[in-house]
Amino acid sequence: MSHNSFGHLFRVTTWGESHGPAIGCVVDGCPPGLALSEADIQPWLDRRRPGQSRFTTQRQEPDAVRILSGVFEGQTTGTPISLLIDNVDQRSKDYTEVARAYRPGHADYAYDAKYGLRDPRGGGRSSARETAMRVAAGAVARAVLPEVRIRAWVEAIGGDVATGFDPDEIDRNPFWAADAAAAARWEDLLDSARKAGSSLGAVVAAEATGVPAGWGAPLYAKLDADLAHAMMGINAVKGVEIGDGFAAAALRGEENADPMRPGADGAPTFLANHAGGIAGGISTGQPIRLRVAFKPTSSILTPVATVARDGTATDIATRGRHDPCVGIRGVPVVEAMLALVLADHKLRHRGQRG
Amino acid sequence: MSHNSFGHLFRVTTWGESHGPAIGCVVDGCPPGLALSEADIQPWLDRRRPGQSRFTTQRQEPDAVRILSGVFEGQTTGTPISLLIDNVDQRSKDYTEVARAYRPGHADYAYDAKYGLRDPRGGGRSSARETAMRVAAGAVARAVLPEVRIRAWVEAIGGDVATGFDPDEIDRNPFWAADAAAAARWEDLLDSARKAGSSLGAVVAAEATGVPAGWGAPLYAKLDADLAHAMMGINAVKGVEIGDGFAAAALRGEENADPMRPGADGAPTFLANHAGGIAGGISTGQPIRLRVAFKPTSSILTPVATVARDGTATDIATRGRHDPCVGIRGVPVVEAMLALVLADHKLRHRGQRG
Amino acid sequence: MSHNSFGHLFRVTTWGESHGPAIGCVVDGCPPGLALSEADIQPWLDRRRPGQSRFTTQRQEPDAVRILSGVFEGQTTGTPISLLIDNVDQRSKDYTEVARAYRPGHADYAYDAKYGLRDPRGGGRSSARETAMRVAAGAVARAVLPEVRIRAWVEAIGGDVATGFDPDEIDRNPFWAADAAAAARWEDLLDSARKAGSSLGAVVAAEATGVPAGWGAPLYAKLDADLAHAMMGINAVKGVEIGDGFAAAALRGEENADPMRPGADGAPTFLANHAGGIAGGISTGQPIRLRVAFKPTSSILTPVATVARDGTATDIATRGRHDPCVGIRGVPVVEAMLALVLADHKLRHRGQRG
Amino acid sequence: MSHNSFGHLFRVTTWGESHGPAIGCVVDGCPPGLALSEADIQPWLDRRRPGQSRFTTQRQEPDAVRILSGVFEGQTTGTPISLLIDNVDQRSKDYTEVARAYRPGHADYAYDAKYGLRDPRGGGRSSARETAMRVAAGAVARAVLPEVRIRAWVEAIGGDVATGFDPDEIDRNPFWAADAAAAARWEDLLDSARKAGSSLGAVVAAEATGVPAGWGAPLYAKLDADLAHAMMGINAVKGVEIGDGFAAAALRGEENADPMRPGADGAPTFLANHAGGIAGGISTGQPIRLRVAFKPTSSILTPVATVARDGTATDIATRGRHDPCVGIRGVPVVEAMLALVLADHKLRHRGQRG
Repeated sequence: MSHNSFGHLFRVTTWGESHGPAIGCVVDGCPPGLALSEADIQPWLDRRRPGQSRFTTQRQEPDAVRILSGVFEGQTTGTPISLLIDNVDQRSKDYTEVARAYRPGHADYAYDAKYGLRDPRGGGRSSARETAMRVAAGAVARAVLPEVRIRAWVEAIGGDVATGFDPDEIDRNPFWAADAAAAARWEDLLDSARKAGSSLGAVVAAEATGVPAGWGAPLYAKLDADLAHAMMGINAVKGVEIGDGFAAAALRGEENADPMRPGADGAPTFLANHAGGIAGGISTGQPIRLRVAFKPTSSILTPVATVARDGTATDIATRGRHDPCVGIRGVPVVEAMLALVLADHKLRHRGQRG
Repeated sequence: MSHNSFGHLFRVTTWGESHGPAIGCVVDGCPPGLALSEADIQPWLDRRRPGQSRFTTQRQEPDAVRILSGVFEGQTTGTPISLLIDNVDQRSKDYTEVARAYRPGHADYAYDAKYGLRDPRGGGRSSARETAMRVAAGAVARAVLPEVRIRAWVEAIGGDVATGFDPDEIDRNPFWAADAAAAARWEDLLDSARKAGSSLGAVVAAEATGVPAGWGAPLYAKLDADLAHAMMGINAVKGVEIGDGFAAAALRGEENADPMRPGADGAPTFLANHAGGIAGGISTGQPIRLRVAFKPTSSILTPVATVARDGTATDIATRGRHDPCVGIRGVPVVEAMLALVLADHKLRHRGQRG
Repeated sequence: MSHNSFGHLFRVTTWGESHGPAIGCVVDGCPPGLALSEADIQPWLDRRRPGQSRFTTQRQEPDAVRILSGVFEGQTTGTPISLLIDNVDQRSKDYTEVARAYRPGHADYAYDAKYGLRDPRGGGRSSARETAMRVAAGAVARAVLPEVRIRAWVEAIGGDVATGFDPDEIDRNPFWAADAAAAARWEDLLDSARKAGSSLGAVVAAEATGVPAGWGAPLYAKLDADLAHAMMGINAVKGVEIGDGFAAAALRGEENADPMRPGADGAPTFLANHAGGIAGGISTGQPIRLRVAFKPTSSILTPVATVARDGTATDIATRGRHDPCVGIRGVPVVEAMLALVLADHKLRHRGQRG
Repeated sequence: MSHNSFGHLFRVTTWGESHGPAIGCVVDGCPPGLALSEADIQPWLDRRRPGQSRFTTQRQEPDAVRILSGVFEGQTTGTPISLLIDNVDQRSKDYTEVARAYRPGHADYAYDAKYGLRDPRGGGRSSARETAMRVAAGAVARAVLPEVRIRAWVEAIGGDVATGFDPDEIDRNPFWAADAAAAARWEDLLDSARKAGSSLGAVVAAEATGVPAGWGAPLYAKLDADLAHAMMGINAVKGVEIGDGFAAAALRGEENADPMRPGADGAPTFLANHAGGIAGGISTGQPIRLRVAFKPTSSILTPVATVARDGTATDIATRGRHDPCVGIRGVPVVEAMLALVLADHKLRHRGQRG
């Protein structure tokens, strides 16, 4: 029940602060005999890497991952895989003001209340920099899931919802939008927010296809519950939906049913997917679908009323280098968490079923 | 990492099927020396009990709880508390059709795919009847949390959203509505859905006040992530929001900030609560606020296209006794899960901090 | 990390006190589709049942087990199996003196120090009565392990070591001795200790054959470490050895080696088994062998100096009904714990390896 | 339930192979605000460091530890503490023969059977080199336990038992013997075994004083059971005793009792400590005492009959650099595991009791 571990049979423990010497993770329980090298992990990290467009933070981190254990002659050995990324571009001087006063909407005050002290450099442990290790571990999880295809995309920014869906479009724009028209609009939206020293929220959608029926373990290791935990734990996330989510609450039973018909290979064919591929906490063989709400970050230039550590009233404006819309870089993180949950449940299912 | 256990230091394991002889749970890790008797648990079960109005299932279950261990002379001893409720009103004859074919939207097919067999009587383990034990365990959790006040209410049914909020109203109507006008409208709405053999979705809101700053443990035991897990694992739930949830994704950073000012007792006063009382996965001392989406149940009289266990096409209408809107009886369950998460985190926090 | 749960994928949670209304357990994670009924569990409980000879406690408990969940039409469903045994022959009046003062060697003082209160009736939760549920759960574990044969026997009582080994003898005497001559000697030894109001220690040996190479998970879920945990957690146990145990510490490397030769079916043949079938925490395919030391119980008629709850000096003699040698009834418990550890590791291994 | 994690609230995850680039661990759940730097950890590592006398392996490793996270301005922050040691003196050329055939008594065959492949360089993950991280993590655990004093010593080598006990002697000889006469004898014994290319077993004893009554959590997180798990999981350990251990099995009840008398400060005084400071799985306030049996390592120059990976018969002699008596360097490891178990239970106890 480690605070900083995730998963059970396929289990990831992360460590590290934004401005420490390095960040890292340990992936335990990985099946042996899988081909794995840094080259299998790095591309996923590169998708999340900061400083790639003007729409993300300008911190320059190569995020070059090293495998320190658990792989021998190109294959996983079944023992813990240690992954490490050196922090390169720390500018701790930016954070003196953060050390003095709490940034509203940030974890500053909560960490102080919990621990009695905190590492203010770049948010310390609460920094989204940690999500790099989720992405790295997620790349290992993908090796466990050759039958599954995972993808995520941005569905809305600042309330502007994409109306089209062309999966080929996702990799063609800096917003991971599946709609070229939306990407064009968001460019202006982001530029305007960035120039105003503001930030924008976003909705990220994700899908996993190829998941067989039977993964997930009722009643307290339900697949949807574990996905909700995984997604809500990503920095800045405030909402999670499986399938139709909140929209389902406005439907009638007959509208929300996913009728079934005999399928070609013995498994049923579903005529709809309101459920998002999960019933009773167990995958049904349909695509898993979910949606994640990212709030606008609190790292804005507009001064906000706050309290200093010494208890006095003050205002704070967050300088430093920040993402104007963290939801964008959330896309590879959502994908990684989805992979981590599925890899764990694949192993758990075969543990019980053989 | 038991599939059927919930929590870590304050940990609940539930067992039992809808139509077995009994259902029960074991509450482990409860602090010793707390006053506890059946009379402390029964009132919460009575709130969830079926058959209390025409808007819930007509199954008649007294749900009389017995404490079988862990309490001596009216006090918890620190050892496992075993709670048991006998099943009284099983009518297994209703379920022959369910055994033959899968009810779309139910867990029938998923359980068969996972386990290779299933108990079809009343949904077996997947029945919402199990939530009685969550409510019973939640009553024990409340004893661990004298400083916290928890309440939930129905905010919308079938897309009809309550506009008023009067907490005193909640216990006065069969919908746990905090708005008398909404309750009046929902009476018609539910009657109409029930007569049509249909069902309706609902949104439940919940709040916990009195939670001190500092509960929750980053990064993979975040309070909001654990709440999302707890809520998404309730039968029929498809979405969870903390604070502003999806609405936050449409805001700008300055709109979403919760400015702080020095408070009377040393702790800061917050000027807003978009965050729902949690920052960086840790409670801030503000009220914890969340919202949960319940789908309309699939147990409807309208026949739906489906597949029989033998692979042939068929239609199925769910007879038996069912809730036309499971979200209503979800209210005490949401409260219980909120109590369980908070009790566990209270103990975890003091384990690390002393 | 429940205090009262054991195992991970195959996980048992027990509850109940010596003099409460019932004791029970929940077995979670059991594979579905296994044949299971009360008749598969009861014979193992009957072996442990008290009152069967003058060498065990005279408390009369039928220990009739009921399955309350997790089995449908004679097969496990994969959901939690709840087992319950009613307590029948409680005589709480015997324990007023125990409530007043601490019995040296018992858990009385330690429980009070830990919890601030305790249930003194029959030792409450610390009573060896709880081991009935270990035996019941162990019977379920055996259903998971059709390839494995487990047996235990008493090797020494009060320092008198059996020299012969005839497995057929084990079930023919009330001591589970594998040596008829030793059984004859122990009859006198036990009678004499019993009449003197004293008690005797014992050594129990156990073996599991048919365990394939590969179970156990280094480095902190080693099979031998988990067995040591399981055995040391049995009431009155003070020592555990795997293979040669402490005797190995007096050997030289060449004496302790288990040389290997090519075997008939591809697996190697071992020419010795000093290691007790486990190397590096992983089973080697040889028989698993271990040895467990039970202290003499502290429940003796001889008065011992002690302290009352009010802090004053006093003497205490333990009346009530007690085993003069708890190691004897420890035999089915040792077998059960061995089965539980192996069932868990079988599932864990196939979770990682498939 | 990570395979490579240890503890629950104070939880350590280790990674790394004997001949990989580095080894490391993550310590999670450490209370915040404790003074900690590399200088607090290094001295304990230096005690375990190889190559310090002719009685241990000649591999030269500085074992210089680095703290990569979880400490800010000299204090623990409550977030994961990542510790890393670079491997410096790997000579992988020594291990070609090991890759070809299984060393009897080693984990070689078991790892191959479990994982289908293995890293043969220096034993890979099964190497005792990993115990450096246990010692490093144990140093952090000591910071959590200022009230506790832990020490271990060698009690016997190759069957030659020390008869005296002078704690001041422990640090004065290369065997951690508490008896100067025994140390003198063991010098000859070890020299003779080393020259013969053989190895010797050993018994290590350990004690923790200052542990208050009440740590440990019945029934499946008993302090003695967790200690047994911790000790049996150390490389080469085959037996564990708490208090009198196996000797207790030869005693009568009145000989084994630990009589109590009123003590000066309200807590009782015990007149004996057969129990080793633990009753019912809970500490009693007496010194915790245990004993651990180390087998002679299988890394001997004498050729032993074995099987090659290709299934053919062969002989193997283990060259490389090895400890003639691993029990000696086991002393700081036993101490570390004792500290880790106690730190975890301290936090668990205050989680439940406050």
